[in-house]
Amino acid sequence: MNNGPLTEARAALSPAARIQGMLDVEAALAESLAAEGLIPSSCVPAIRDAARADLYDAATIEILAARAGNPAIPLIEMLTARVAAADPGAARYVHWGATSQDILDTGLVLQLRAAVPAIQADLLRAAAGAIKLAREYADTAQAGRTWLQHATPITFGLKAAGWADALSRSRTRLAQAFDQAMVLQFGGAAGTLAALGGRGIAVANALGTRLDLRVPDLPWHAERDRLAELASALGIAAGTLGKIGRDLALLSQTEINEAHEAPAQGRGGSSSMPQKRNPVAASIALAAAVRAPGLVSTMLTAMPQEHERGLGGWQAEWETLPELVRLVAGSAASMAEALDSLVVRPEAMAANLAITGGLTNAEAVSIALAGHVGVRRAHEIVANACRAAGSKSRPLADVLKEDAAAMAHLTPAEVDALLVPDRYLGMARTFIERVLTRFDNPAGGDA
Amino acid sequence: MNNGPLTEARAALSPAARIQGMLDVEAALAESLAAEGLIPSSCVPAIRDAARADLYDAATIEILAARAGNPAIPLIEMLTARVAAADPGAARYVHWGATSQDILDTGLVLQLRAAVPAIQADLLRAAAGAIKLAREYADTAQAGRTWLQHATPITFGLKAAGWADALSRSRTRLAQAFDQAMVLQFGGAAGTLAALGGRGIAVANALGTRLDLRVPDLPWHAERDRLAELASALGIAAGTLGKIGRDLALLSQTEINEAHEAPAQGRGGSSSMPQKRNPVAASIALAAAVRAPGLVSTMLTAMPQEHERGLGGWQAEWETLPELVRLVAGSAASMAEALDSLVVRPEAMAANLAITGGLTNAEAVSIALAGHVGVRRAHEIVANACRAAGSKSRPLADVLKEDAAAMAHLTPAEVDALLVPDRYLGMARTFIERVLTRFDNPAGGDA
Amino acid sequence: MNNGPLTEARAALSPAARIQGMLDVEAALAESLAAEGLIPSSCVPAIRDAARADLYDAATIEILAARAGNPAIPLIEMLTARVAAADPGAARYVHWGATSQDILDTGLVLQLRAAVPAIQADLLRAAAGAIKLAREYADTAQAGRTWLQHATPITFGLKAAGWADALSRSRTRLAQAFDQAMVLQFGGAAGTLAALGGRGIAVANALGTRLDLRVPDLPWHAERDRLAELASALGIAAGTLGKIGRDLALLSQTEINEAHEAPAQGRGGSSSMPQKRNPVAASIALAAAVRAPGLVSTMLTAMPQEHERGLGGWQAEWETLPELVRLVAGSAASMAEALDSLVVRPEAMAANLAITGGLTNAEAVSIALAGHVGVRRAHEIVANACRAAGSKSRPLADVLKEDAAAMAHLTPAEVDALLVPDRYLGMARTFIERVLTRFDNPAGGDA
Amino acid sequence: MNNGPLTEARAALSPAARIQGMLDVEAALAESLAAEGLIPSSCVPAIRDAARADLYDAATIEILAARAGNPAIPLIEMLTARVAAADPGAARYVHWGATSQDILDTGLVLQLRAAVPAIQADLLRAAAGAIKLAREYADTAQAGRTWLQHATPITFGLKAAGWADALSRSRTRLAQAFDQAMVLQFGGAAGTLAALGGRGIAVANALGTRLDLRVPDLPWHAERDRLAELASALGIAAGTLGKIGRDLALLSQTEINEAHEAPAQGRGGSSSMPQKRNPVAASIALAAAVRAPGLVSTMLTAMPQEHERGLGGWQAEWETLPELVRLVAGSAASMAEALDSLVVRPEAMAANLAITGGLTNAEAVSIALAGHVGVRRAHEIVANACRAAGSKSRPLADVLKEDAAAMAHLTPAEVDALLVPDRYLGMARTFIERVLTRFDNPAGGDA
Repeated sequence: MNNGPLTEARAALSPAARIQGMLDVEAALAESLAAEGLIPSSCVPAIRDAARADLYDAATIEILAARAGNPAIPLIEMLTARVAAADPGAARYVHWGATSQDILDTGLVLQLRAAVPAIQADLLRAAAGAIKLAREYADTAQAGRTWLQHATPITFGLKAAGWADALSRSRTRLAQAFDQAMVLQFGGAAGTLAALGGRGIAVANALGTRLDLRVPDLPWHAERDRLAELASALGIAAGTLGKIGRDLALLSQTEINEAHEAPAQGRGGSSSMPQKRNPVAASIALAAAVRAPGLVSTMLTAMPQEHERGLGGWQAEWETLPELVRLVAGSAASMAEALDSLVVRPEAMAANLAITGGLTNAEAVSIALAGHVGVRRAHEIVANACRAAGSKSRPLADVLKEDAAAMAHLTPAEVDALLVPDRYLGMARTFIERVLTRFDNPAGGDA
Repeated sequence: MNNGPLTEARAALSPAARIQGMLDVEAALAESLAAEGLIPSSCVPAIRDAARADLYDAATIEILAARAGNPAIPLIEMLTARVAAADPGAARYVHWGATSQDILDTGLVLQLRAAVPAIQADLLRAAAGAIKLAREYADTAQAGRTWLQHATPITFGLKAAGWADALSRSRTRLAQAFDQAMVLQFGGAAGTLAALGGRGIAVANALGTRLDLRVPDLPWHAERDRLAELASALGIAAGTLGKIGRDLALLSQTEINEAHEAPAQGRGGSSSMPQKRNPVAASIALAAAVRAPGLVSTMLTAMPQEHERGLGGWQAEWETLPELVRLVAGSAASMAEALDSLVVRPEAMAANLAITGGLTNAEAVSIALAGHVGVRRAHEIVANACRAAGSKSRPLADVLKEDAAAMAHLTPAEVDALLVPDRYLGMARTFIERVLTRFDNPAGGDA
Repeated sequence: MNNGPLTEARAALSPAARIQGMLDVEAALAESLAAEGLIPSSCVPAIRDAARADLYDAATIEILAARAGNPAIPLIEMLTARVAAADPGAARYVHWGATSQDILDTGLVLQLRAAVPAIQADLLRAAAGAIKLAREYADTAQAGRTWLQHATPITFGLKAAGWADALSRSRTRLAQAFDQAMVLQFGGAAGTLAALGGRGIAVANALGTRLDLRVPDLPWHAERDRLAELASALGIAAGTLGKIGRDLALLSQTEINEAHEAPAQGRGGSSSMPQKRNPVAASIALAAAVRAPGLVSTMLTAMPQEHERGLGGWQAEWETLPELVRLVAGSAASMAEALDSLVVRPEAMAANLAITGGLTNAEAVSIALAGHVGVRRAHEIVANACRAAGSKSRPLADVLKEDAAAMAHLTPAEVDALLVPDRYLGMARTFIERVLTRFDNPAGGDA
Repeated sequence: MNNGPLTEARAALSPAARIQGMLDVEAALAESLAAEGLIPSSCVPAIRDAARADLYDAATIEILAARAGNPAIPLIEMLTARVAAADPGAARYVHWGATSQDILDTGLVLQLRAAVPAIQADLLRAAAGAIKLAREYADTAQAGRTWLQHATPITFGLKAAGWADALSRSRTRLAQAFDQAMVLQFGGAAGTLAALGGRGIAVANALGTRLDLRVPDLPWHAERDRLAELASALGIAAGTLGKIGRDLALLSQTEINEAHEAPAQGRGGSSSMPQKRNPVAASIALAAAVRAPGLVSTMLTAMPQEHERGLGGWQAEWETLPELVRLVAGSAASMAEALDSLVVRPEAMAANLAITGGLTNAEAVSIALAGHVGVRRAHEIVANACRAAGSKSRPLADVLKEDAAAMAHLTPAEVDALLVPDRYLGMARTFIERVLTRFDNPAGGDA
């Protein structure tokens, strides 16, 4: 109901695209068989002509599939009938030597080939958006937050660099899984290509060449790990996008208001509340991250398929993997747009960072004291001061300056210096630069 | 792609039905507001007239939802425009006092009200089919199988009674969860109905009466346990149906062939193999049982929703629960048909039971010996005899009759009598009768 | 590693408790067999004496189980050997007529009987804590938040009443599922009790009486819906507790600070940051809510078990259901403590509610205008004013008073009155009272 | 309760190993800090000496973790106390500059480093076992089975080659994911290493070198994709092993009996039935395949972690990933043993293949006829003959020879030849050889 923009990737998973995928395989099969001399070349044009999804009704196929067991069987019957009407001789050779699963699986692979690169493009857009933020806000201090509590200062650039870094890994991982999945399925009835006599491999190679798909060592009718790997890579991408969505949603809370999605006509309003500006892209990414794990789980659950073709497991994949692709496509497109146009409010970041009167830098004082009294005692001294500051709503600096244990080792000026957020950013800048460098030059690995 | 027959339940979850559900809520809301005097009664007809799903385009709403955040917002805008065209005054009062989630959630409840009873009817059909089998084959001995190995004899009636018993519990559980879920969602912007001044409860009661839904103690915008319970009950039903599907699939294996789905035109064929008669209904039930757990998991994962309305979790429910309903509907319909028309082959049951030359009754001998030598020693004696019988492909009776340890306590005639499968059925008949009795008289509980 | 307090419920799921559960079944079986005259009464004491978990080594049983297939088999062997050492005659009758699964399943049921009421007690404590908050803060206004944005005002009491309401449903649901699951498993080798001749039902009844468990119509070796239902009820409870945990975590964010878990020695500190006060109970509840769905999913996935005893599915349950019980036990105990001792900061609630300069009451103005200009136009006027107020950081009242469209229908005093948060709480008080009444008098259902 | 043999991998995930992992990080941290001159070198020995897991009580740490929020905090306190007892000066520097998550995450990485290669060794053993079967039974015809029905003939070698092929991919995938996960976690309080002043990177590099872990571009406290990828690779391995387990379980059914796990003392017996020989290894693999998807799902669900450290999601990983490693370890070890010692029964394969009187070769006849009458008509002719053969229990050859439509194009001798299973194996041999070649020479990719 709201899976984000209707992207190219989502279009590639439509019912019509599924039918076209199967028809493309049938047409290429006829061409390959003809090329190998197993069927007359004269049959090919009629089959190719009838291999257009708009000639078939998806709803009828769905209904017939419920009895037939799968949608390829009624589609092949319809295709055969249509070819027969144009060229009865050609109709003799439709689907020669193949089994339904060859058509369904390879058709799915063709759909995935259309869909996944579109997702990759959006992941790249999202990563580029995060990189832009990392660069622009590399020195913009912000409260680091752990367990949803202020921790020590970070920069907004560091947060964005973390997003970009994870997005880059998602792209690499998805590219690898995608590459693994771009294989032909062609084994015939039980995976031996027996119907093609001694020409099975030759036809398979021709078909792989024609469809531009790798030919695996043997058919994979009941070995579904490649699809499971692709599903996992998509699920992990959903999680990474969901993490960004969660951060954005949290940052745009009314009280925090450090960033929000760019307003636009028709976006994020409420049917009841005039003031609302809901983080719609974040909700799409988070909803996808809630849904994707269950779908990945289904793909994994489906793996132990019986003997040469599964009963239940294979069928469970049919809607699950396309749904997962659709979800991740919508999430990636939404996050790409959100990051690219994010409204960032450095003034709110500064204000929020100041809200605790120095507590975010408590560790800085503690570490300074630790050199004198040890980590544990220093932690104790400062924790006591923090509690006192909190309970009396006083700045930590003031409390510390009255604390004999602390002041035995620090001057008031040192205390003040330790409590400046901008001076306690550690390696943030360096970390950002590493990510920027790798983004510009993605060839390397971790150091 | 193959979720079984297009049942009434599945139709109730269509995109058009979703829009109609929301429109029904808007129309009833206008009526309720008018009845309570909050809006003029004259407004109602125009709103009611415009509340027909066929006036709106689901695809457009889907696209707009991606920006708006949910499909109710664009639908309400379209509804308002349509009402305005007919009666500008009436358009002023469309959606008065409600929030999008009120419309979406209550609309979903209305869809569920149409769908779940249809599933229940199919579960009842399936249970009746199993009861018929339990009655007809109450004395038909069959190999009991544990860990997929022959265990001791059972009857096919006992197996079917187990199916019926579990289906009955599924129906009861689903009825309870369904009843829990039939509640109005009506809370306005943040769940206080503040926009209705002091009349919130009155309007809620009127709306509940009009839609025939219970009015809960307070709105449940972010407390989703009722839907999660319904999802769970559906998931458990899918599991119970899946267990039947698995048993049927195993029984119809070529080598076992004790039962198979009734053949029918267009069912269970193969696009390559002329002899095939695939257990299509079983595959639908098993696929649903593979998919349902992931969807239930998603509904549970979505539960910790933020404050007064969730961001991510709520949105994740939108397609998940309808999908689950569709799956269980297809599974229940398929199993109902399969059980009702199941082809049972008692002769194969008898033949398979005989295949091990008496090993299925090894326990009978062991228990007879145990009275003399103890459980453990008896188990040992008979296990040795079983191994000898298996390795030499001899009947267990022959081996035992040559075994001094066994024959110290048993006569050859006793051995023969102990190894008659039909005489080692224990309480099977009684268990079946209990299930038949309860099915005819469902009021009671377990003993 | 952090599943919350080590509760009674968690103790009931320990490895030792599992062994004791199985031994309790074996001892009760011997007593029942003796009572029915199938074995000599003189055998019972030796069996009963040996049925103590501390006599057996859990680690050894685990290792042997890996070969045997389940832990009951080696345990029964050890039990038999121990009985034999004390009374060789008694050893003859150990485990008479039962199968491993009878022992494992009924033993698990006994463990659940010890564990679930302890969870229920903590759910009741948590509900009572929420009720206390609902009562105490019934009139404490707070920003309602939807999509993590300020919506309209609510009261903290309303939020707490929503928690209490959902917790009450969780208790009812869990009680029902628990009741369903309290059934004896006793069917022997393949579910016919054939080894007991014609006395199977009599022994089953005696065993049920002795263990105080209902005797089902027939054994449920491969029909696992009762356990799946219990798992679902636990999963839903985890979700409801997780929702409370999420709300608490969000409310205790440094910038919001409206409530936090009571500080205590050793709780919620950081190993690096002296100022930290992490919401540990919330993290336990949220982690359980992340983990529970996967475990419920596993229980559902395991349901389609083969024939009379499953291969894979049954075994998958063994650690999954106990783990789920442990998780929910820790979550319930943590939330009970957190709610009971929650530190609430009404002053922060008031301050946060004021932060937007009136935007939380935008709907109040909109609805007041809607009577004059219709819902849609009113929404538009106020939305424009909200945008202006937001972009110029001005109070909404000031902007509205300069807005001709708004002031055509409202006086400045009316605008001011409409923007008082405390006057726009709708039915909040009534909703709370309903929940309080039902908590005091839980018999009724929804209105 | 039965996760298979207690492998090295499972030992690496024990509670004690977890504590040792954390202590190893603390010790290496002290060494690195000393090497970089941040703490005195004299402190290192006392810290190193106290960094032995046997000095600490896991149960106590677990209890304290419930309040502290994580087990690192109490462990660090205990470690500090122990160091202080030996060398008060050294105790000052324990855990300097790190945060709990650095210790927990890096400790986990160290555990994984010990565990995963042991799993890989078992996956290799399993693949080698499958390869051995593929080689030995390359020409042993067996019924191919699709939808659990006889399809066309295959060889048992082809089935085993499919297992080996998938296992090889599992190893490659797991190796890649494992490599990705072998990264240091070291970021301090909020991921900036601020407590180390300008020396953060230097210490991180020293620590990475010392622990032999890669140093990532920036800390990954809230970006969990590397662990999610490892979890996914483990989940896919579980699925692949589960598929083998399912095939073995099905092949060892009493009626089919084509292969079974090697018998051994104490393996696969029944507590009630003397004749039982349960497929225990298959049950372990299938149970793991049922459980793994839920655990992977949990790891993915946990991904959207808040800001710089999650609240709920991170904590949900703590037991989930180790549990998944344990499961896959047990599954891999069980399958390795089962495949290596599998008892194969070629005579049963031949007998089962003959059971249908030629139906498994129906496609061969159909394809022979298709050259004359087209695919569709040929399918129809042969399907009719198959039905007649089945209903009258006659050999397909006899029926065909009386069928005018068939005999118009085939001689009786051709019919006989077409129905020889061993002559209809297509590319089986070639497929096997490809897998054997790649196993011996794993460098290449798909053709």
